[in-house]
Amino acid sequence: MPAAKPVAIVFDTFGSVVDWRSSLIAELTRFGETRGIAADWTALVDGWRAAYHPSMDRVRKGQQPWVKLDALHRASLDRLVAEAGIKGLTEADLDHINRGWHRLKPWPDSVPGLTRLKTRFIIGPLSNGNVALLTNMAKYAGLPWDAVFGSDLFRHFKPDPETYLGVADLLDLQPHQVMMAAAHNNDLANARKCGLMTAFFPRPSEYGPHQKRDFAADQDWDIVATDIEDMASKLGV
Amino acid sequence: MPAAKPVAIVFDTFGSVVDWRSSLIAELTRFGETRGIAADWTALVDGWRAAYHPSMDRVRKGQQPWVKLDALHRASLDRLVAEAGIKGLTEADLDHINRGWHRLKPWPDSVPGLTRLKTRFIIGPLSNGNVALLTNMAKYAGLPWDAVFGSDLFRHFKPDPETYLGVADLLDLQPHQVMMAAAHNNDLANARKCGLMTAFFPRPSEYGPHQKRDFAADQDWDIVATDIEDMASKLGV
Repeated sequence: MPAAKPVAIVFDTFGSVVDWRSSLIAELTRFGETRGIAADWTALVDGWRAAYHPSMDRVRKGQQPWVKLDALHRASLDRLVAEAGIKGLTEADLDHINRGWHRLKPWPDSVPGLTRLKTRFIIGPLSNGNVALLTNMAKYAGLPWDAVFGSDLFRHFKPDPETYLGVADLLDLQPHQVMMAAAHNNDLANARKCGLMTAFFPRPSEYGPHQKRDFAADQDWDIVATDIEDMASKLGV
Repeated sequence: MPAAKPVAIVFDTFGSVVDWRSSLIAELTRFGETRGIAADWTALVDGWRAAYHPSMDRVRKGQQPWVKLDALHRASLDRLVAEAGIKGLTEADLDHINRGWHRLKPWPDSVPGLTRLKTRFIIGPLSNGNVALLTNMAKYAGLPWDAVFGSDLFRHFKPDPETYLGVADLLDLQPHQVMMAAAHNNDLANARKCGLMTAFFPRPSEYGPHQKRDFAADQDWDIVATDIEDMASKLGV
């Protein structure tokens, strides 16, 4: 257990709290079967996620004005559908598919772990997702957040410091009173540079067979846990 | 029951969800007794609330730069303490007293009514309070919000349209898909001008013996209820 405890814990969401890959592959496979549209949906999902960081980086570097993650997801989806030659998708279909990111399923320990942490700490997502996406996801998945910190509140994507410092400011806390929790070492490294506490738990199947990193902690994070339930135990709740 | 139902319901908070006057008078009376500091705490609380709208109006009219409500509350408190000649309060005392607005008690129907509404709708406060104040209040009072919409997200106080339209934008909803719920007709009139749905329930003892208005609905709001539990019933949950 760390010597000091945070007042608030904010969570990376995609991959850390919810299993985007399995959720999207399952939903799109069912969609394709129901609609009789053949495609390599697994490849589409992997390509979609591969476009995630480059699309945000264009905004972060000022090559594109601020837009919500929903809009970046949609632009990447349109391009990937065209490149894969998938036919028969209407505008309503594309909007529905894009909102698949609002309907992701939690890892098995997420809801019980967050429910325990909520008894002692302020908990919320600190995600590149926008508030609508994160709020809809919480309703769908039963994530018991106290407040929702989407990137649109800051008009910055992680790892811009405006996100880590922005959530501390909104909560009227000092950075060291806020803990960033994630399955991604890079996110924690950037949070630590801003003075936040850090908690790591691995999600070794997040990227399926394509996972290349984040199998283990690569710094001495304040907490290293096996999952969110174990993190709650290590924080004494 | 209205013909259409909202997707999200946002609540005015001070007076509508929590009983600021009784909560603050009780807390300050206990504080004064414990510390042996004599004062007319009831008059202080009524004076504090009387300063609320004028202090926000100075910001809304551009006479003062944006600050969070916590800062406006503190400036008003400092002035009222000086005017009343209350002696013996330390800086820590004044900060503690100011954060009394983070520790307000809900009306008896608030938590059960919100819990019912949360099963069907996205619910959150849309308040002139800042995110920290509202988040701490929710933890203290057990308010089961899905997301917290403080005025610092918009850097505007109600009734500026940026607040009503801003919450719809954050939720990616059209204004008519959002319902404003309040015990204050004026708040609802301004929300309606922005295209939101409206729900009224009276809090006739909000201002104690000083209550002068809002004993009943003064327009044909989409819902007129006796309290938040009755509002849930009228929305079919």
